[in-house]
Amino acid sequence: MRARRALLYMPGDDRHKIEKALTLDVDCICMDMEDGVALNRKTEARRIIATALRELTFGRSEKLARINAVGSGLEMEDIGVVLPSRPDGIVVPKAESLEQIQWVSGKIEAAELAHGWPVNSIRMLVGVETAKAILNLKEIASHPRLDGLIFGGEDYAASVGAVRTPEAMELLYARSAVVTAAAAFGLQAIDMVTINFQDLETLRREAAFGAQLGYTGKQVIHPAQVGPVQEAFTPNDESIENARRLLEAFGAHQKDGKGAFALDGKMIDMPLVKAAQGVLERARAAGKWQTDFSPQN
Amino acid sequence: MRARRALLYMPGDDRHKIEKALTLDVDCICMDMEDGVALNRKTEARRIIATALRELTFGRSEKLARINAVGSGLEMEDIGVVLPSRPDGIVVPKAESLEQIQWVSGKIEAAELAHGWPVNSIRMLVGVETAKAILNLKEIASHPRLDGLIFGGEDYAASVGAVRTPEAMELLYARSAVVTAAAAFGLQAIDMVTINFQDLETLRREAAFGAQLGYTGKQVIHPAQVGPVQEAFTPNDESIENARRLLEAFGAHQKDGKGAFALDGKMIDMPLVKAAQGVLERARAAGKWQTDFSPQN
Amino acid sequence: MRARRALLYMPGDDRHKIEKALTLDVDCICMDMEDGVALNRKTEARRIIATALRELTFGRSEKLARINAVGSGLEMEDIGVVLPSRPDGIVVPKAESLEQIQWVSGKIEAAELAHGWPVNSIRMLVGVETAKAILNLKEIASHPRLDGLIFGGEDYAASVGAVRTPEAMELLYARSAVVTAAAAFGLQAIDMVTINFQDLETLRREAAFGAQLGYTGKQVIHPAQVGPVQEAFTPNDESIENARRLLEAFGAHQKDGKGAFALDGKMIDMPLVKAAQGVLERARAAGKWQTDFSPQN
Repeated sequence: MRARRALLYMPGDDRHKIEKALTLDVDCICMDMEDGVALNRKTEARRIIATALRELTFGRSEKLARINAVGSGLEMEDIGVVLPSRPDGIVVPKAESLEQIQWVSGKIEAAELAHGWPVNSIRMLVGVETAKAILNLKEIASHPRLDGLIFGGEDYAASVGAVRTPEAMELLYARSAVVTAAAAFGLQAIDMVTINFQDLETLRREAAFGAQLGYTGKQVIHPAQVGPVQEAFTPNDESIENARRLLEAFGAHQKDGKGAFALDGKMIDMPLVKAAQGVLERARAAGKWQTDFSPQN
Repeated sequence: MRARRALLYMPGDDRHKIEKALTLDVDCICMDMEDGVALNRKTEARRIIATALRELTFGRSEKLARINAVGSGLEMEDIGVVLPSRPDGIVVPKAESLEQIQWVSGKIEAAELAHGWPVNSIRMLVGVETAKAILNLKEIASHPRLDGLIFGGEDYAASVGAVRTPEAMELLYARSAVVTAAAAFGLQAIDMVTINFQDLETLRREAAFGAQLGYTGKQVIHPAQVGPVQEAFTPNDESIENARRLLEAFGAHQKDGKGAFALDGKMIDMPLVKAAQGVLERARAAGKWQTDFSPQN
Repeated sequence: MRARRALLYMPGDDRHKIEKALTLDVDCICMDMEDGVALNRKTEARRIIATALRELTFGRSEKLARINAVGSGLEMEDIGVVLPSRPDGIVVPKAESLEQIQWVSGKIEAAELAHGWPVNSIRMLVGVETAKAILNLKEIASHPRLDGLIFGGEDYAASVGAVRTPEAMELLYARSAVVTAAAAFGLQAIDMVTINFQDLETLRREAAFGAQLGYTGKQVIHPAQVGPVQEAFTPNDESIENARRLLEAFGAHQKDGKGAFALDGKMIDMPLVKAAQGVLERARAAGKWQTDFSPQN
């Protein structure tokens, strides 16, 4: 699974901003059709995103498109216009049930089959942003096309009528629940936006706390946020070395075909192997790791 | 849904205290048959509550009656004696399963039908006060007769063997879970009692933190707690203005019959509409809002 | 249910350390075949534990054996070698589903039947140490052979990729979820290890916070941790007196056969009775309580 330390939203109806994003060396560029685009600009946004996907070179940045919520009445056309231009993945905001995920996945699979692309090659990330989503997390997170859960802090607070504070105790329960559900299904967890993009100190503190909780990346809404966030989610040298050793031992073990497998007296299971692969992917995205460790599973 | 900023308990076996409650301009008066009444006074409490419901004028205060827990052996007679006097709602303490809620709702519906009252006009509020209730929250909160969940902090702490502290970190998980489940089903969330009713500073701090988490009201046990609590759960001018604008735009949109609906570039869905209605109801209860905004659905 | 204030792990392949544990007056001695034993020492550990169970006198300390995780490929032989020597209980680490618990319980029941021991006399404690376990807590905790849930803080943090900090906010959600699930099923909750066993001040603070959350005991990994932890989970005089009064009233009530039962104006239900019995069991383990209060249920 590719690194997604920073996931940058750009309004889908602004080609200029999308082109700007290409210069930022950001892990993920998410071209938005939802909250970042006015209702009377949705058609224009779909057209610009479809064109950008075909014409522009995204380099190492992932090409994502965020559709409107399933049930908004806009999602069908969003996905219908954008999919033929083959984004790397679709972001589904305000997901509240497995059925919604299945519906979007079905549309994607139909497009994959129609175009002869490998099935499941277009990935999904889903926004967990409401109380209902928290209640249905276990079902939502179980879908095999998912690569990650995205926690929408501001929308969640609005959903429960919470008052946002800098310490964010009002979000701790839901923010932790998202990490747990993501980890249980081997998904990435992408943390909430820091709204005030001029306050980089708050951004760094919030990113660090997100990483402490287990988040593997964070949503950003401004170019200035990309660098600090990607830095906050880049593993340190000790983590990289631990992950490298674990995967090396795992590789040797695979070759030997032994039943159980231990490192430093601790049994190693697949979730730990996958976590180590995630660490090295993030290190690689940061240029701190070059060798191919041939992820297995 | 009516505002329930403060929900005041009065012992059901004390007519004098019930009469006192009528003078307090409190959103909800809950006449208690449960913990506030000794075992040998239950019969007297039922009789006094039934009489008070028929004889006294509650003005704008909601008339609630709290029965004993389903399974205590007392609940059948509680509800049987009180219902014919038509309370506005029944509070069910220590709910632990959907079946218990369904049982009480069935009794209420039978009374509604027998007396020719509109079905579902008598509402239910349920106390979430045990570990088992937290595990079954998703089922419990789903019942259509419910208007709110009430978090019983002291009882919950006893249920898990937690030690109560002023910062209440031992309650954060359950207290947050109640807010989330309530919001997911469009219910009000009513926060725990502040036991020391002489300490109004602690009361204000706890009420503010409850509101921060998303609670819409708080249980109180003493007349002196009513004012500070109702103040803490009264929306500020900015919230009122935002809610007013949202509902105005929603009304215009309803008239035009357009498919999707945005305000300030953000899609508005029914949960946000309902939340705005809740804000204005609380403002109205505080006398900070007069116009009828004709709540829809 | 017996007191389990401190649950001390000793590596199963070290007979000397197991003998040392016998001198520590610790509530539970858990002889380990899992993380405390290198892969090439598993066979030796099984043999030493089986012998120790037959030859050594554990006094008031509970004799527990921790097997390797179900699915590791080691668990079958662990349990097969150890069970015939009749441990008091089996600790199942990294449980993630009810099926795993059922599998172990089935093996234990077969041994009980084969040896003519009472069915369910050998108890189970399960380690909740991964994200998946938190998602499946409600099912896992429901098994009737369980006496307790054990929260594995370090393993859980690794499972979700969290960064461990002294304040442990990254664990609060899962650590609270374990207490809630345990209490809902009348189980004990045994808190995480304090890794740095030389820092007794941190140990005491973490133990106190665990008790505050509702934990009834704590895992320990060094003899020096036993005393402080058992002290932290010993009820104070007021708790003991409250529990004694509650059980006394309960006993009188049982004799009278009355329907409902109140103490100090509060209805007493079975969870509160069981909690009071737990308090007195911990007091008895600390030598602060002698009389037999004949636990009922």
